[in-house]
Amino acid sequence: MKLVSFHTPDTPGARVGALVELAITPSASGASVVDLALAFAAWRRDVEHDPFADDIARVRIPADMKRFLEGGRHSLQAARDALRHAHTLADSPDSPTLARSGIVRPLATVRLLAPLHRPGKIIAIGANYSGHIQEGRNAGVLRDLPQYPVAFLKMPSAVIGPDEAIVRSRHTEELDYEIELSMVIGQRCRDLSSDNWRDAVAGFTIVNDISMRDLIVQEKPTGVVFQGKNLDTTCPLGPCIVTTDEIADPDALEISLRVNGETRQHDNTRQMIFKCGAILAYWSSRLTLEPGDIVTTGTTTGVAGFNKRFPERLLKHGDVIEAEIEGIGILRNLVVDER
Amino acid sequence: MKLVSFHTPDTPGARVGALVELAITPSASGASVVDLALAFAAWRRDVEHDPFADDIARVRIPADMKRFLEGGRHSLQAARDALRHAHTLADSPDSPTLARSGIVRPLATVRLLAPLHRPGKIIAIGANYSGHIQEGRNAGVLRDLPQYPVAFLKMPSAVIGPDEAIVRSRHTEELDYEIELSMVIGQRCRDLSSDNWRDAVAGFTIVNDISMRDLIVQEKPTGVVFQGKNLDTTCPLGPCIVTTDEIADPDALEISLRVNGETRQHDNTRQMIFKCGAILAYWSSRLTLEPGDIVTTGTTTGVAGFNKRFPERLLKHGDVIEAEIEGIGILRNLVVDER
Repeated sequence: MKLVSFHTPDTPGARVGALVELAITPSASGASVVDLALAFAAWRRDVEHDPFADDIARVRIPADMKRFLEGGRHSLQAARDALRHAHTLADSPDSPTLARSGIVRPLATVRLLAPLHRPGKIIAIGANYSGHIQEGRNAGVLRDLPQYPVAFLKMPSAVIGPDEAIVRSRHTEELDYEIELSMVIGQRCRDLSSDNWRDAVAGFTIVNDISMRDLIVQEKPTGVVFQGKNLDTTCPLGPCIVTTDEIADPDALEISLRVNGETRQHDNTRQMIFKCGAILAYWSSRLTLEPGDIVTTGTTTGVAGFNKRFPERLLKHGDVIEAEIEGIGILRNLVVDER
Repeated sequence: MKLVSFHTPDTPGARVGALVELAITPSASGASVVDLALAFAAWRRDVEHDPFADDIARVRIPADMKRFLEGGRHSLQAARDALRHAHTLADSPDSPTLARSGIVRPLATVRLLAPLHRPGKIIAIGANYSGHIQEGRNAGVLRDLPQYPVAFLKMPSAVIGPDEAIVRSRHTEELDYEIELSMVIGQRCRDLSSDNWRDAVAGFTIVNDISMRDLIVQEKPTGVVFQGKNLDTTCPLGPCIVTTDEIADPDALEISLRVNGETRQHDNTRQMIFKCGAILAYWSSRLTLEPGDIVTTGTTTGVAGFNKRFPERLLKHGDVIEAEIEGIGILRNLVVDER
């Protein structure tokens, strides 16, 4: 299932949905969003004859994805029931009324938000592809191969969603991109092993770890990485959370990033030094992971800031970035200057 | 007002309250907690004759402090109305029934929680007292006086409350304390000035920035500060949030920390290099602060890990830490070893 958060013109606040290919009228076809709370309520009402269908749906499929994830397998089962019912409705003779119910909406008529508006914490893995480490070394920024999956924290309030603007702060001249496969935690856990780590993961998404290279260099004497990774809008996240059952092997996914249509990063997650399981085993041996946390996996070669021969590759006002990972989709964002 | 989160034996989940000196029965006296939602509902019902008093109280005084803070001045006004009504009730001839209503409870009968269970983000200021910088320099850890209020991030999931255990992880041998006056953000803001910064602050609290000195040293080659500041239970926070109106000058507060009754840190926030206003002006010029965020102000001299002559001062199983700041109170925690 491809879980999304979305806004519609006629309902207040965010809603939790699922991306589907579903034609809801004979003329329409293609990409749609199922409103999971509405679809679940319809199923409880129409099939299970539940007199409190709407109330149960509000609890089981909350509007906030973090709360949805906190519901664990109960939320996911409700979402699956909802999705199945939406398909049943679409196949029935009454399907034209489906278009008016709001249960299924053409993707083009809704606005996708970051699937997680405010993660609990964002553990961002730093140097996890040898090519990226090599280019960082050439730029005098990174050093040796890491002994463990080194990480820093990104701020939850830096998160933005698909098609939202990455605002280049007035404090930086060196804005850069970093595509990263990211894990969405679905279960409170510690001390995961390489056998059971997938149980703790609700799904996978894309993070574009926007970095301010000049600020990272300026911060170096202070011994911390903060501003260089953490100004507003520097954590585009989305477009969806693909549930774990749909990603057979997260350690073998094509991953690529384009700026204005030009491919800048292209690799396969097979090249990761620490695989998803090793990353979670390490960090969960140190600290507790909670539903709604994000753990990234590092980026590959091709970032702009590590190659001084092409200063024009640094991000500038008007640039369009497309970060794509096999099986997840494309996270697209526009760059604009502050003010 | 001293805002707290608390648990009672007979109600599920956390509640928002206020610490008061209020005798609710002729025999009882002293420290009590007003249940702000119950008191507000009683006022709406008894004085304002509001037929939906309980529903309004649930919205205006949510059980979660972060949501309470998001309510801004509306939440604070409701809390003040609630508190005034609790005092009125305590003075009335019916006051014995107050004890049974749950509106006011003796402090000894409730359990205080971290006043903010999961802050949005925790911006932790690093080196902000010259004495601490000097001892850090002697230990070969800190360098020059900072040019700006250098910060790192602490994880929201590391937060614990009063009397909760600080668990010394099996991964560290050098557990240390750092008392810090901390600001609780009450308003979404950017670009605060030295004139208006107080408007963005809901109140003040205490953070004990528990630090793993050995991990900080081990991480140094990686260029990040993460594990050394961010294992589970390393962010004791509380015991309350004192609203801004009750702290005349946060830059002139006595601050001290005791371990097993022995004073280890003692100073006045007058000695801070960057004052509260300067810290918020700087960081809000970089990024957006949101209700429920925490910004600390750094610690003073006297930490254990920077003075190798007294290795026995490092925290060990059974130690009791009391972190005290004038006008806020005492944040007390016990140290226990993992497993």
